[in-house]
Amino acid sequence: MKHKSESEKALQELGKDVVKQIKKEKNPELTFTLRGLSNIIYDPKIRSLKLGSKTASRSFFNLAHAKKFLQTFDVAAVIKNLIKEGKHASLRDVFYQVKRTIPSTKINVVDEQTESDKVIEDLEVITNLSREQLHVNANKEGSIVGNVVIEDSGDTINWAKLGSGGWSIPSNVENIKFKKINAKFIIYMEKAAVWERLHEDRFWEKQNCIIITSQGQTTRGIRRLLQRMYEEHNLPIYVLCDLDPWGAYIYSVIKYGSIALAHLGTRMTIPGVKYLGITCQDVEKYGLQKHLIKLNEQDISRIKQISEYDWFKDNKAWLQQFKMMKSMNSKAEIQALSSRGISFISNVYLPEKIKNKDFID
Amino acid sequence: MKHKSESEKALQELGKDVVKQIKKEKNPELTFTLRGLSNIIYDPKIRSLKLGSKTASRSFFNLAHAKKFLQTFDVAAVIKNLIKEGKHASLRDVFYQVKRTIPSTKINVVDEQTESDKVIEDLEVITNLSREQLHVNANKEGSIVGNVVIEDSGDTINWAKLGSGGWSIPSNVENIKFKKINAKFIIYMEKAAVWERLHEDRFWEKQNCIIITSQGQTTRGIRRLLQRMYEEHNLPIYVLCDLDPWGAYIYSVIKYGSIALAHLGTRMTIPGVKYLGITCQDVEKYGLQKHLIKLNEQDISRIKQISEYDWFKDNKAWLQQFKMMKSMNSKAEIQALSSRGISFISNVYLPEKIKNKDFID
Repeated sequence: MKHKSESEKALQELGKDVVKQIKKEKNPELTFTLRGLSNIIYDPKIRSLKLGSKTASRSFFNLAHAKKFLQTFDVAAVIKNLIKEGKHASLRDVFYQVKRTIPSTKINVVDEQTESDKVIEDLEVITNLSREQLHVNANKEGSIVGNVVIEDSGDTINWAKLGSGGWSIPSNVENIKFKKINAKFIIYMEKAAVWERLHEDRFWEKQNCIIITSQGQTTRGIRRLLQRMYEEHNLPIYVLCDLDPWGAYIYSVIKYGSIALAHLGTRMTIPGVKYLGITCQDVEKYGLQKHLIKLNEQDISRIKQISEYDWFKDNKAWLQQFKMMKSMNSKAEIQALSSRGISFISNVYLPEKIKNKDFID
Repeated sequence: MKHKSESEKALQELGKDVVKQIKKEKNPELTFTLRGLSNIIYDPKIRSLKLGSKTASRSFFNLAHAKKFLQTFDVAAVIKNLIKEGKHASLRDVFYQVKRTIPSTKINVVDEQTESDKVIEDLEVITNLSREQLHVNANKEGSIVGNVVIEDSGDTINWAKLGSGGWSIPSNVENIKFKKINAKFIIYMEKAAVWERLHEDRFWEKQNCIIITSQGQTTRGIRRLLQRMYEEHNLPIYVLCDLDPWGAYIYSVIKYGSIALAHLGTRMTIPGVKYLGITCQDVEKYGLQKHLIKLNEQDISRIKQISEYDWFKDNKAWLQQFKMMKSMNSKAEIQALSSRGISFISNVYLPEKIKNKDFID
């Protein structure tokens, strides 16, 4: 249980440091890297969003800080208990555990969940540990199948023997052990229906790969699972999305990280992932012209917005896609491939694109 | 493969009947039960929503019907192919498969997915089979754990040996075989985070039960899975939701069905399920008074709306809950129980409520 002791140690040090300051009769103070937008930068060298060098401090005898200071230590205490008991909680659970009225006042430690959520992010920065290592889990979502055997919570699980459903991905994958991986690559897709298509076609078996899906935005659990397989087992990862700005963004979050979680730096990013989704070139190549969907206003403004993001604005291949989407005034869904036959995606489209390394970086 | 031949037969009959009409030089016509709101009734005897006796007909030589008539047979043809090939599709896939331009015209068979969706619902009524039996799957969502061994797609799966993730529930559960069920009851919960709590506490092992979750609305796959375990194995089902009108509705859909799927009648309903979620009485009994959340406008209007539904309006226990919510002007979440300790739900709340049969019907 490496994480456990690491996390416990980090929280203990946090407490000890404050006690030391109090004993020296100082105003107890915490200093940590600022998480605001003004301190979020895209670092092209590591191909990841990260925090800059600005710091903030929070002290107890400061009217503007006192409550946040108390919140920080109350949340840290709740987390310390979770770790001690070997239990995990959701953000909502932590909120309810921290929510109490300060004795002989009418003031609550927290009134809204956003307050405890922010403190948990602060603690990620302060301790240099992720929420998951601090036993605070994100959403559970997604399914996975492939020639992989893992160990988790005392069970040995073969991802190749789970029927039509697959393994349900937990919110926290830190303690999973990979016992055997027999796969050449991973395909992550944004749509569970496409995953069911590939699974029914035994695509993962025929192509010797792993297929994984969530539904819409990629959860932290899935991002960490992908990252662990990429880093620990050198597995290439291909992302299969719709041709629209939302698909491009889903891809970019897996690759470069997200603004909301920039403080995690490279802890969640996978610079080597490739985009395997529908491209503007695919539309002609695979005869999808009659199955385009007109861009709506949100699509158009989102294309404008993401083309200006640091990690897209110098990327010629993506800028070309955005330009073509605008000039076609259209987007296209993965499932448009079903117009060519229900298993066209498994039998033709994906094998061809993978064989030709027809990816966008 | 009983379903398969049943479904194939139903579609064949549909085609044969039209051919017969054409040979008799009649205007080919389809007659089926009307699905509109005007024909949806709540039947207290079977405790389920169902369709009334009004029928509609659709004929080919009728300007208002011709397109729908064609759509019906085009969709039926796509489905017949799916069944023949042993494959399943999503609604979106069927839409793309049906979307084609009628030769030497500029008219598409369908332009929007809502058109093919409606035809699929028509076919459910016409053939008296469910979408799943017609190989058209709904959303995939949810996780399950318990002392159960199943067979699915050639794999034998033990739901008790799947680590922290559990089995990922497929969209279509028609072909699952239950090989061994060693459980006394089932708890279905609306929140995946609560499921992870119960699973980490090994609640299902200690209480010898099955725990199952989706996230928010219950998918058709989950409803059918619950129903099959209830009907084929006599397992009591308890539903664990937040105390708010949305939780009450999630419960009622599992029990009585939904307006949108009324044409399925008792095919998806489980009249025997009990509500085990937070009640107004629990608030005092378990000291949650400080953890109530104020009702917002949507909550208030939704309470008014659902208290008038046929299946709630004569139910004293539920009307009392709605009244108390309004007089407290508050709702309460399952996770409010975390304020009493992270495992209070597993160690105290649920065992006590189940032991005392403290349910709402």
